[in-house]
Amino acid sequence: MTEADAARRILKAVDDGFDDQIRFTADLTRQPSLRGQEAAAQDMMARAFRDRGLGVDRWLIDVEAIRNLPGFSPVMVSYENAWNVVGAWRPQGARGRSLILNGHIDVVPTGPADMWTSPPFEPRIADGWLYGRGGGDMKAGLVAGMYAFDAVRRAGYAPQGDIYIQSVVEEECTGNGALACLQRGYKADTAIIPEPSQCKLGAAQVGVMWFQVHVQGRPVHVARAGSGSNAIEACFPIIRALHELEEDWNKRGHAAFAEHKHPINFVVSKIQGGDWTSSVPAWCVFDMRVSLFPGMDLAQCRREIEETVANAARKDSFLANSPPRVVYHGFQAEGYVLEGGAEPQALLERCHQTVFGQKLDRMTFTGTTDARFFGLYADTPAMVYGPESEDIHGFDERVNIESIRRVTQSIALFIADWCGVKAA
Amino acid sequence: MTEADAARRILKAVDDGFDDQIRFTADLTRQPSLRGQEAAAQDMMARAFRDRGLGVDRWLIDVEAIRNLPGFSPVMVSYENAWNVVGAWRPQGARGRSLILNGHIDVVPTGPADMWTSPPFEPRIADGWLYGRGGGDMKAGLVAGMYAFDAVRRAGYAPQGDIYIQSVVEEECTGNGALACLQRGYKADTAIIPEPSQCKLGAAQVGVMWFQVHVQGRPVHVARAGSGSNAIEACFPIIRALHELEEDWNKRGHAAFAEHKHPINFVVSKIQGGDWTSSVPAWCVFDMRVSLFPGMDLAQCRREIEETVANAARKDSFLANSPPRVVYHGFQAEGYVLEGGAEPQALLERCHQTVFGQKLDRMTFTGTTDARFFGLYADTPAMVYGPESEDIHGFDERVNIESIRRVTQSIALFIADWCGVKAA
Repeated sequence: MTEADAARRILKAVDDGFDDQIRFTADLTRQPSLRGQEAAAQDMMARAFRDRGLGVDRWLIDVEAIRNLPGFSPVMVSYENAWNVVGAWRPQGARGRSLILNGHIDVVPTGPADMWTSPPFEPRIADGWLYGRGGGDMKAGLVAGMYAFDAVRRAGYAPQGDIYIQSVVEEECTGNGALACLQRGYKADTAIIPEPSQCKLGAAQVGVMWFQVHVQGRPVHVARAGSGSNAIEACFPIIRALHELEEDWNKRGHAAFAEHKHPINFVVSKIQGGDWTSSVPAWCVFDMRVSLFPGMDLAQCRREIEETVANAARKDSFLANSPPRVVYHGFQAEGYVLEGGAEPQALLERCHQTVFGQKLDRMTFTGTTDARFFGLYADTPAMVYGPESEDIHGFDERVNIESIRRVTQSIALFIADWCGVKAA
Repeated sequence: MTEADAARRILKAVDDGFDDQIRFTADLTRQPSLRGQEAAAQDMMARAFRDRGLGVDRWLIDVEAIRNLPGFSPVMVSYENAWNVVGAWRPQGARGRSLILNGHIDVVPTGPADMWTSPPFEPRIADGWLYGRGGGDMKAGLVAGMYAFDAVRRAGYAPQGDIYIQSVVEEECTGNGALACLQRGYKADTAIIPEPSQCKLGAAQVGVMWFQVHVQGRPVHVARAGSGSNAIEACFPIIRALHELEEDWNKRGHAAFAEHKHPINFVVSKIQGGDWTSSVPAWCVFDMRVSLFPGMDLAQCRREIEETVANAARKDSFLANSPPRVVYHGFQAEGYVLEGGAEPQALLERCHQTVFGQKLDRMTFTGTTDARFFGLYADTPAMVYGPESEDIHGFDERVNIESIRRVTQSIALFIADWCGVKAA
């Protein structure tokens, strides 16, 4: 049988399994695997791995075991339900190259449900798109990796390299799920992360940092508001100053992001303050997410943020003596540029060309993905490559169904070539 | 016995009961009678009334019964624990003038407890002050009314007019507790409200209005923050515009507030927005408390507020098509100027002069009190007159103990003269 025949068989096998793949993707999207609630969705993945005869490794993330590893992000929540699951294909002999297919199971909150056209955890297919929270980011991609593996098997082949399908938690807030896979010893010659990259290859991603600013006020009866200090309004000039730092960081630029007009985004994403409508508020806390270019040092970034907050506070007569606190909880993620891995990149380009009939474009992420762990801390070229998605983190998040099929086909061809196959 | 003798006996009776009065005030301050949690403190008042042989009327506020009365404020919470208590002295014959002594049992939240020197609901006496949330605003005053009545009795006199000691809820948010007393039919020739007026007579108070502004955003992944609309930051220009309206209202001025530099205060007192640190926030709600001069029409004020919000929103490309909602919940309180009631005012001045040895000063409140209900809607001159307090609604709220004694003495003399007494 020629190589072209093999490819045709594998592509057809993806098609043959595709209805089931979309059904499984929808079922997985139905799981409301919000932070701290991923366990049932992970059980579903563990069952799917077991059904395929893969070795199943399901473990609770042990914060103490990863706390001192590079890439760790501090957490303020309990990990008592933070389960990772890995399905492993371990061929006899294993003469081929190994591969990690990594995806995350956690999804971000829906926001007000009434702003969705249909309920966020009731997946709906319309006009060629699958709607639902987490369908695009990134259950479709996670499932695509597994069904790509299935297709190779269904086509009658046994991959000759180790394959680890990793379903991890915590991607949306820390990356500690992927980090825990490194800590547990998983290692391969390359990794694919099918985040919704619009069927392009993720060539670079920014770093991301989360922090909270805790601001105090001096509460008085509102009748004498002038003599108090309003903790809510005291946040505004601090936020303004942080936006100035954002512009400064954007100006520093980075070659990989030259095409982006505004790659660095500082976003005030949560705020809460005050207890009583007739009291000048005594406290306010806002959460900010900032991004940074690859190569920027996290400790230096933290210093700049803290100085910016302190300088803004010094201009306020009350805050000058009650300086705000900056608290880090969540992402302390460095930027990452895909470097090395010429071989797997070239192979993915060929597979993509075969399926899509056009060359594989590159893109850069102004967000982060778990790719950084493999690339920065495990010397494993990590390629972000996944389907087309819209409004992730927004309302009516959706993923394009045809793009899922094609990405699955590309990955299936990649598996067959990278790992090598023999007739099963 | 001369009138001066009677006064001396009454003043001494206040002194004799004063240790017990402060003990009771501290015990009442120990009750955390926050909104919705006043019932146990009200039971304590009901027991105290019963112990004195007063008629006790304890009832749950019926929103439907007061909803259409002037002065009603809309509520968004349940009244299932909103109990009012009135202790009534009903002398045989009742030839004297009648009196309402009205105080509120509800207290505002403490804010972060660690910002208090000692726990807010563990009353503490130091340097002549009683510390604790609600001690000043206004349990000391509420209790002073009851102990003033006691002192008259202990001095051997029976007041000859009806006296209603009203312990009401909801003063800090709506005034619906006092309104429910009107609705239930309580009525007298004058009223004293021992709010912490620094031993002065409250001659005027502003109106107060609460509202929320609900702002929407367009959530996107923070990586593309520029294409979303940040609901939190969208609040800032709206708040700025409302502060401009505040300055405009201040400029309109009012004779009774001529001595205040800035009588009208608009305060952003609560804010909450956003769900997830890596999503552009889809929603934010802030609470504002505004004040207005006596004579300003509430409906017109609401129109001006809504126009201000709408105009500010129109400048935002997203909000122009998703205008914020203004929701009223809580105070819709008109301003009030003490008018009429020359006789009770003159009497209170004389009683105060006797106790303090100096004339009764007047003050104006840049907040509201329940006095407005009696004055505006029941044709009853309502005099705010109570002890000296500091940091009400703040940390380490405290009330001056000597000022409690003296105010109690003034009110006791007032009761004896206003209602008339005969030897018991």
